[in-house]
Amino acid sequence: MTHKIAILGASGYTGAELIRLIATHPSMEITALSADRKAGMQMGDVFPHLRHLSLPKLVKIDEIDFTHVDLVFCALPHATSQAVIKKLPSKIKVVDLSADFRLRDLAEYEKWYGKPHSAPELQGEAVYGLTEFYRDDISAARLVAGTGCNAATGQFALRPLIAAGIIDLDEIIIDLKTGVSGAGRSLKENLLHAELSEGAHAYAVGGAHRHLAEFDQEFSAVAGRPVKVQFTPHLLPANRGIVATVYVKGDPKVIHKTLADAYKNEPFIVMLPFGEHPSTRHVRGSNFCHVGVVGDRIAGRTIVIAALDNLTKGSSGQALQNANLMLGEDETAGLMLAPVFP
Amino acid sequence: MTHKIAILGASGYTGAELIRLIATHPSMEITALSADRKAGMQMGDVFPHLRHLSLPKLVKIDEIDFTHVDLVFCALPHATSQAVIKKLPSKIKVVDLSADFRLRDLAEYEKWYGKPHSAPELQGEAVYGLTEFYRDDISAARLVAGTGCNAATGQFALRPLIAAGIIDLDEIIIDLKTGVSGAGRSLKENLLHAELSEGAHAYAVGGAHRHLAEFDQEFSAVAGRPVKVQFTPHLLPANRGIVATVYVKGDPKVIHKTLADAYKNEPFIVMLPFGEHPSTRHVRGSNFCHVGVVGDRIAGRTIVIAALDNLTKGSSGQALQNANLMLGEDETAGLMLAPVFP
Amino acid sequence: MTHKIAILGASGYTGAELIRLIATHPSMEITALSADRKAGMQMGDVFPHLRHLSLPKLVKIDEIDFTHVDLVFCALPHATSQAVIKKLPSKIKVVDLSADFRLRDLAEYEKWYGKPHSAPELQGEAVYGLTEFYRDDISAARLVAGTGCNAATGQFALRPLIAAGIIDLDEIIIDLKTGVSGAGRSLKENLLHAELSEGAHAYAVGGAHRHLAEFDQEFSAVAGRPVKVQFTPHLLPANRGIVATVYVKGDPKVIHKTLADAYKNEPFIVMLPFGEHPSTRHVRGSNFCHVGVVGDRIAGRTIVIAALDNLTKGSSGQALQNANLMLGEDETAGLMLAPVFP
Amino acid sequence: MTHKIAILGASGYTGAELIRLIATHPSMEITALSADRKAGMQMGDVFPHLRHLSLPKLVKIDEIDFTHVDLVFCALPHATSQAVIKKLPSKIKVVDLSADFRLRDLAEYEKWYGKPHSAPELQGEAVYGLTEFYRDDISAARLVAGTGCNAATGQFALRPLIAAGIIDLDEIIIDLKTGVSGAGRSLKENLLHAELSEGAHAYAVGGAHRHLAEFDQEFSAVAGRPVKVQFTPHLLPANRGIVATVYVKGDPKVIHKTLADAYKNEPFIVMLPFGEHPSTRHVRGSNFCHVGVVGDRIAGRTIVIAALDNLTKGSSGQALQNANLMLGEDETAGLMLAPVFP
Repeated sequence: MTHKIAILGASGYTGAELIRLIATHPSMEITALSADRKAGMQMGDVFPHLRHLSLPKLVKIDEIDFTHVDLVFCALPHATSQAVIKKLPSKIKVVDLSADFRLRDLAEYEKWYGKPHSAPELQGEAVYGLTEFYRDDISAARLVAGTGCNAATGQFALRPLIAAGIIDLDEIIIDLKTGVSGAGRSLKENLLHAELSEGAHAYAVGGAHRHLAEFDQEFSAVAGRPVKVQFTPHLLPANRGIVATVYVKGDPKVIHKTLADAYKNEPFIVMLPFGEHPSTRHVRGSNFCHVGVVGDRIAGRTIVIAALDNLTKGSSGQALQNANLMLGEDETAGLMLAPVFP
Repeated sequence: MTHKIAILGASGYTGAELIRLIATHPSMEITALSADRKAGMQMGDVFPHLRHLSLPKLVKIDEIDFTHVDLVFCALPHATSQAVIKKLPSKIKVVDLSADFRLRDLAEYEKWYGKPHSAPELQGEAVYGLTEFYRDDISAARLVAGTGCNAATGQFALRPLIAAGIIDLDEIIIDLKTGVSGAGRSLKENLLHAELSEGAHAYAVGGAHRHLAEFDQEFSAVAGRPVKVQFTPHLLPANRGIVATVYVKGDPKVIHKTLADAYKNEPFIVMLPFGEHPSTRHVRGSNFCHVGVVGDRIAGRTIVIAALDNLTKGSSGQALQNANLMLGEDETAGLMLAPVFP
Repeated sequence: MTHKIAILGASGYTGAELIRLIATHPSMEITALSADRKAGMQMGDVFPHLRHLSLPKLVKIDEIDFTHVDLVFCALPHATSQAVIKKLPSKIKVVDLSADFRLRDLAEYEKWYGKPHSAPELQGEAVYGLTEFYRDDISAARLVAGTGCNAATGQFALRPLIAAGIIDLDEIIIDLKTGVSGAGRSLKENLLHAELSEGAHAYAVGGAHRHLAEFDQEFSAVAGRPVKVQFTPHLLPANRGIVATVYVKGDPKVIHKTLADAYKNEPFIVMLPFGEHPSTRHVRGSNFCHVGVVGDRIAGRTIVIAALDNLTKGSSGQALQNANLMLGEDETAGLMLAPVFP
Repeated sequence: MTHKIAILGASGYTGAELIRLIATHPSMEITALSADRKAGMQMGDVFPHLRHLSLPKLVKIDEIDFTHVDLVFCALPHATSQAVIKKLPSKIKVVDLSADFRLRDLAEYEKWYGKPHSAPELQGEAVYGLTEFYRDDISAARLVAGTGCNAATGQFALRPLIAAGIIDLDEIIIDLKTGVSGAGRSLKENLLHAELSEGAHAYAVGGAHRHLAEFDQEFSAVAGRPVKVQFTPHLLPANRGIVATVYVKGDPKVIHKTLADAYKNEPFIVMLPFGEHPSTRHVRGSNFCHVGVVGDRIAGRTIVIAALDNLTKGSSGQALQNANLMLGEDETAGLMLAPVFP
């Protein structure tokens, strides 16, 4: 059986990445693509790397006939996403890649995103889309909220440790380095090649990054008490890839074993041998997340490092993994592509 | 039916790329991997991006039992390749990725590669591996010689034009720009990041590049008379990708139509609309080659531009495409992966 | 004696580059900086790499008191430049970095830039700013028109050859590769890091690039008859640097000797030994232009390759070199900085 | 008066950087350059970006006549450096860029560098070359030991804070990102462009990096008690630049004021306004170090970020700054070059 898929907001990087992945999916067919400003264009003109595919023309959302659509990927900006999703026929399954349905506490949403939530009734049914930890809920969900790409990376390093109660919850630092595609295809001076290549810098330092809202929500829920981490993202001169260097207090061997046990049956989480650590280059273009653990020379301190591709495992690959579950397909369908190196 | 595959020289970039592609191939199984200096290691230690795969351990060639091997990919350096292939059981099909069997004239081989050919008897049965132009011969071959990556790019731009007799054969210039992975994983000062990033330079200028031997052989064969082109490769600060800007004398519209007709049924050659031209970014990680044609402001002059990924369509993807034909499989099996962008 | 300098349009890359160079100039003092949209800001906030300098605040042009200004660098967009310069006090010397005064034929200006020239009376006194070939005129000029960066590179490779009559004037091809800073700090999708890194593509193919107007004007003037070249620029994943690979018909040794003789006393043109050729990396951040000559394997064909930094020798360095002449200073003052490598 | 300078080990990146800086120094003349394997070559052939300079030919160290040499920059590998420096005439001043004389405790040297020190008598007179903190000693020294580039960056962020006793000495984490030129021009697989571009990874995780020996020595000396920090370096796809993100416990405003006071008269340390933080791009090619301070959302936690160019302020620029002091010149001579951006 082939599932009919619509992608809303197909002219951004996450939309294009969804199409790349679905192109070799055995049981999905893309039947509609929307892009507001680029409506009327062919996808191959907006993203020439997809020229070889036969794809529907880009249209405005209003022009889509949703009658036979089984699942919608919504790759629109936050705030827009809410407004669009609440108008969709309620029988359609939805995977939202925006931030709109990630935060269960509506006050937190308003605090971090600067305006009230406009679809609070939908928030109630939304499931947080970190597949490895919400698998059953996602399988049964109608609406799944894709996680932040940085939030996913940090959680893969930390959730099992917090759950196991083996690290100091008040002393967690996530120093994260990310490629630039996470910022999307937007026209901003700080995303120009001339402003980014051959260097690095931190941004949103000191607790200003919105993905902290996800860390706060998820880590506190896992711990059963409030947990606040420090989080400093840095921008790399690279398009894809996130590496999170996480500093914790706890025994390195216990930490490694806890993570290895937690992930031993996960198809996409690759646990490295103790003492080894990952590189963004080795997950690029794939849905894999590599996790490594190293003990510090100071006893009782451990460094956990996780790496994934922000557009794949951090966003569109995760979305497809969730869609597979929601549609009753093999969770890994269309997602076993090996990373592209070099 | 599953074909049993061995890859010799698996510790280089083309070996790794073969494994990446075969990882999702429906009817191939890798049963042996060789790597001389890295024998005894796991592939995931040599190339951590392949860590998620179950692969045979790297061994020396002598340790491989070829009894049940159906096809060998030989990704060894030239000269070594000859010596190894002539010792293989004669029933095994071979796709060689080195330069050893590309040149039908043994004197040309000696001239360009600096030593006599050591397996002249095998040269006689080798088929030149440019799939789109040698498809029938490849399907029937036991030994196929993969082309040079630059040689493939230039030929996709030019062969149909030379065959059709619509361009001046004495006035062809190929100005080519290539990523660095074509030079392999070798330890050379000029391949260091610090020597390459943020700049560009020509190399092998004036007729010194060995892929000229392939241009000479193939273009002369197609034309039925000697053809010598000018060819200047340049090194880009990029890992994958070749773009060849080809200057010819001939009518641009006729040239575009001739190429479009030649490639209209080709699954991997994407002909762009007249006046458009390709980018290496839009073929990265894929087996596609994009070809564009633009007329110059000077009447009777045309620029043909072709772009492909040197490791995929220019090398390992081409090799797999040929292997599919040799094994009676669908030519596109394992090769329809969309390019990775951005 | 210290010359008082104003820079109009200081918030772009060429403006910042002028400040970088003037920072160590022995006899220039920057007394005014304009930037329309960023008026009121400190230069160190617009360009943090200049934070260590004491510089005037950015203001609107109308706010500048030009009474004591000796020379103005005008780094404004074309069309705007004309309008501004014609309002400046006529005693002030002006180096214009835009395209507005490069073309002596006003009809050519209108053809290439799409609107009539608004300061035709000034065009009459403007001197084309390719220092090495207009040195005397520049020394005496009030208004000097900086050249296009690509136009400068191509001319360094070709002017002495055209003047000497030793190459075929109807068979010149300039295949040029340029870094992205030449496009300025403008918000365009095709200048984003994610759209540019790790690849290359041609643009303005077939005779569409405006710098062709300069090639046409200058080469025809040197030859004494119309000369039209082919010119294909390519965009590199690099910020600075242009390398022009120029294909000509003529004797390589004669060509090398002609260029070497032409440049033997030039402080900024470095002629490489016969058979060697340059890299953009070896001129980065400097006012030097490296020129090399290689003979092709086809007799009578020669490749001339020139490399320079588009922001320095191709733009702001050239502008300062011209300003030095106009002010009676040593032509090399502030410009002998060695290239930055790696 | 012109000082006669010899550079030993001139064929590496730090040697080339010294020449770049000295090229515009008002009172230094390079009279000898050594390079063991490249003896007999011209510097312009080893580093074509220096082609425009008249420089002595590369020779072996034994061939240098040190009679009239005033100061030697020793840019040799560690261990080699000791052996060479102890043979130099004792009247010659020496700035060593290797690790050989950085550690006052010879046992620490042996522990971190794996072999006994071979010139212990010289270690006694060596001064640690962090100019801003050892200025008087350096002015009087015959032998100055250049610091590690990472060690310098971390110390600029931390020394005044440790001296002032305003941060928790047991809770310091330095998460550092560095360009690749710090590893030199050595032929290692992990320095190839194809292994580095478009990604990032940590290395020497958990306390394995040799620059920790300098942190231990210096911070403990400043604090008057043992101080051990955590330090994780990461490799960036960039040639130049280090940014250190330092996590401390202490009041952010007090920390900012302490650093601002400490550096208010320093010509090369640029303190950013509270809440701002630096980028490697804004110091590239210069001797400046930018330092910023941001308070975390968790009270009592502060992030200090320092950025510098590893080849300039982190190595050759620091060396020249020290040499200026040792020779009685203005400390900033030859070093006021503005950063190169973009």
